[in-house]
Amino acid sequence: MELRAKVLDLDADKYVVVLNEKTAKRMGEGPDGRVEIAKNGKRVVAILNTAKRSVAEDEVGVLTDVAEELGIETGDLVEVYPEEPPASIEAIRKKIFGKKLTEEEIRKIIEDVMSGALFTAEASAFITACEINGLDMDETVALTKAIADSGERIQLEGEVVDKHSIGGVPGNRITFFFVPIMASLGYKVPKTSSRAITSPAGTADTMEVLARVDLSAEEIKEIVETVGGVIAWGGGANIASADDRLIQIRRPLRLDPLGMVLSSVMAKKVAVSSKYMVLDLPVGPEAKIHSFNEARDWEKKFKELGDLLGIKVVGFISNGIQPIGKGIGPVLEAKDVLLTYERGLSQDLLEKGVEITSRLLAFLKKVPVSRARKLAMDQVRSGEAEKKLREIIEAQGGDPEVKPEDLEPGLHNAEVTAERDGKVSYISIQKIAKIARYAGAPTDKKAGIWMNVKVGDKVKKGDVLFTVFSSSERKLRAAMEIAEGAIHIE
Amino acid sequence: MELRAKVLDLDADKYVVVLNEKTAKRMGEGPDGRVEIAKNGKRVVAILNTAKRSVAEDEVGVLTDVAEELGIETGDLVEVYPEEPPASIEAIRKKIFGKKLTEEEIRKIIEDVMSGALFTAEASAFITACEINGLDMDETVALTKAIADSGERIQLEGEVVDKHSIGGVPGNRITFFFVPIMASLGYKVPKTSSRAITSPAGTADTMEVLARVDLSAEEIKEIVETVGGVIAWGGGANIASADDRLIQIRRPLRLDPLGMVLSSVMAKKVAVSSKYMVLDLPVGPEAKIHSFNEARDWEKKFKELGDLLGIKVVGFISNGIQPIGKGIGPVLEAKDVLLTYERGLSQDLLEKGVEITSRLLAFLKKVPVSRARKLAMDQVRSGEAEKKLREIIEAQGGDPEVKPEDLEPGLHNAEVTAERDGKVSYISIQKIAKIARYAGAPTDKKAGIWMNVKVGDKVKKGDVLFTVFSSSERKLRAAMEIAEGAIHIE
Repeated sequence: MELRAKVLDLDADKYVVVLNEKTAKRMGEGPDGRVEIAKNGKRVVAILNTAKRSVAEDEVGVLTDVAEELGIETGDLVEVYPEEPPASIEAIRKKIFGKKLTEEEIRKIIEDVMSGALFTAEASAFITACEINGLDMDETVALTKAIADSGERIQLEGEVVDKHSIGGVPGNRITFFFVPIMASLGYKVPKTSSRAITSPAGTADTMEVLARVDLSAEEIKEIVETVGGVIAWGGGANIASADDRLIQIRRPLRLDPLGMVLSSVMAKKVAVSSKYMVLDLPVGPEAKIHSFNEARDWEKKFKELGDLLGIKVVGFISNGIQPIGKGIGPVLEAKDVLLTYERGLSQDLLEKGVEITSRLLAFLKKVPVSRARKLAMDQVRSGEAEKKLREIIEAQGGDPEVKPEDLEPGLHNAEVTAERDGKVSYISIQKIAKIARYAGAPTDKKAGIWMNVKVGDKVKKGDVLFTVFSSSERKLRAAMEIAEGAIHIE
Repeated sequence: MELRAKVLDLDADKYVVVLNEKTAKRMGEGPDGRVEIAKNGKRVVAILNTAKRSVAEDEVGVLTDVAEELGIETGDLVEVYPEEPPASIEAIRKKIFGKKLTEEEIRKIIEDVMSGALFTAEASAFITACEINGLDMDETVALTKAIADSGERIQLEGEVVDKHSIGGVPGNRITFFFVPIMASLGYKVPKTSSRAITSPAGTADTMEVLARVDLSAEEIKEIVETVGGVIAWGGGANIASADDRLIQIRRPLRLDPLGMVLSSVMAKKVAVSSKYMVLDLPVGPEAKIHSFNEARDWEKKFKELGDLLGIKVVGFISNGIQPIGKGIGPVLEAKDVLLTYERGLSQDLLEKGVEITSRLLAFLKKVPVSRARKLAMDQVRSGEAEKKLREIIEAQGGDPEVKPEDLEPGLHNAEVTAERDGKVSYISIQKIAKIARYAGAPTDKKAGIWMNVKVGDKVKKGDVLFTVFSSSERKLRAAMEIAEGAIHIE
């Protein structure tokens, strides 16, 4: 169909053309359809947006990227036709119809998702098919490699160690102990972390209170090679970038195909050259893992995949029934970490940090866990670990002299108190996370919760169970409205 | 996140906001993510486009629909946050995880797809799940009703009859016989047809050569009530509009979940009040149905669904090994129809038209098929059917006096001749369709093919097998490049 171009002052994440909805219908296409637009012997495939008013029936709205690519100016006559999807669509169909994919097919799907040749709707169909029909270990290895190759790679030599937590537990800031301890012992720790998606703070959000986290791949490499460790935001360094994209597409339907969850974690480790990884598997009724059997299944899968990728995985099944430490939310977690280094404020946080570190250390040094534990704890007690953390903060452009009292939570706060005497019998970690999010975390870095009790603590009526902080009075109110019942007292 | 609005001069098929890709990443969102945008106490949920250049990091690009809805002007401060999908996402998840959906859940999915509350990617996941996990008969009935209710309904009383062909056979213009014969016998025939999607011409494309086909639901009703029959484009009347949308989403992955294919056909019949339907089931190696068993399965499913919807379905398994009639492509098919009425040019077209009509007629009149066949043929022989066709053409704004010679195919044409003496042993209908499409059909209405032979015909070397027509010399050449081997001679 020949149409008159109208160049729009807008660029997009993919090639987009806009047709009047009547023109699109005439063409048998609708919103998010695939069309070819051609001019001057050049052509691009674009996704279709339809408009009622801003584009006339004999016009095609052309976004700036498309206009530049084809040399189109407003008023030019251009040809627009419905177009077929790329060859990788056949691989997606194979998975839909229950067949096993080759490494090449998986690589092509990932490449086409990243280049935009496959549209979000097609990627979503692929993920749905993976959820229903599964990915076997060969496919998972192929997917992991394809994701690792989709972004920057960081080449590091020697004993490169890493950590991953299955997550779901607020305040679980183990990275702030694992990275400094291991780096202070001479290992290389290129730790990349995520920002919060559904939690009140991701490790990257918390680290951002203390230093820059949007480091480039080059910066990460340089910092690891000079200081030994880094705590960076994975998304900023374009590491395993296909993973970010897949996660975005998985989110609305909350789809977690096993092979995709595994490859999501391991691709980032492959991309930064990690050779050893300790895996935190918190188990609890509201954690992501609900039973020890489930945890062991996860551990087994990760080990199996790790072996095929040349990464030794050591699992650590942990207690996920309550928050770790006292702070929840970026500023409060960072404060908690510094206070724990300074005067052992959150013993559970320190102990878990040391324990997880010691599991990997025991494997690496071929010593019993008890000995590795002592080694790790000594690095904390001697001040070496904190010194290393402050070196990392400095290397990432933060203030190495930062003090816990520099970290101020939101001005507005309110306390939740015990309604009766008794013993803390249950803490709903999802509810705690939700309250912190309502208070504004992680966007409001000063928002969050300061926990005063642990499961098993005895409390008296009126005792403060936790305090909610926020920069916004309105958000504090919203958080307080749902704050009841997060902690059960028997 | 608070951002400064930049109103863009563009409207879209859904609410769209544009963020700088860095801002989106910071928010954990990416292309096609879901965000809430709020201003003046009002809010809408919008799909996210990301831009590199046209929208700055502290800005949000707002399309006109969103700007109008929220009263936003360029420079206003607005709040933008990641947003959760609607409740119908849970129903999609149910289907992904293999559970049966309720009527209400299916209705909500269809409503949300149509309102844009569910995005294309989510609808695509739903269709994929239906393809893999299936829809049972209850779900199919619910889907059919939901689709029928998604567009205009046409209320007609009395014996309302209809026809559907599973398709895949070029030149199969049976509707041009079924509708006039039945209407001339006093039945009401509100026939809505599709335009070609992958074929050289849909019934609507061919009828458009003779008359308007983009009739409103009101016009269809009026014409049926005055003339008895209509041959309209279903897409123009907004009948079962969810079906168009679902087909658009199914197309890239060529997904045909059985329940969705069934409901796609039957929803349109429900929407126009049809009570009886004859179903053409062409069987052939390159038709959509490949065997008689498969045809009987389809027939059974359609009958079962029809019974549950109050529509009596009569099946007719036909020969789908070669094109029907001589003309392929809108103008050539229309010409063929007129010449067949005028002087019985394409006996196979006439016979199939009469045969299919007689199957439904036999049921309605409770007479043997032989008697019904005679009744139908008499309507053609007496000129009553042609008279009715011309009344319908007139009612749809066409020229009732149109003559076959008024219908001129494309100026450029080329012949494909027999390379040896022998008998026509095979005609590749997919190849024939492809040649006609390369020649420009259906966009170029004058493009197409005129067939000179049928399977079994004896030919001599040099005899013309078929002629390809096009309005474009370039397209004719493109068609001729692939014209070899469409017809086998033994």
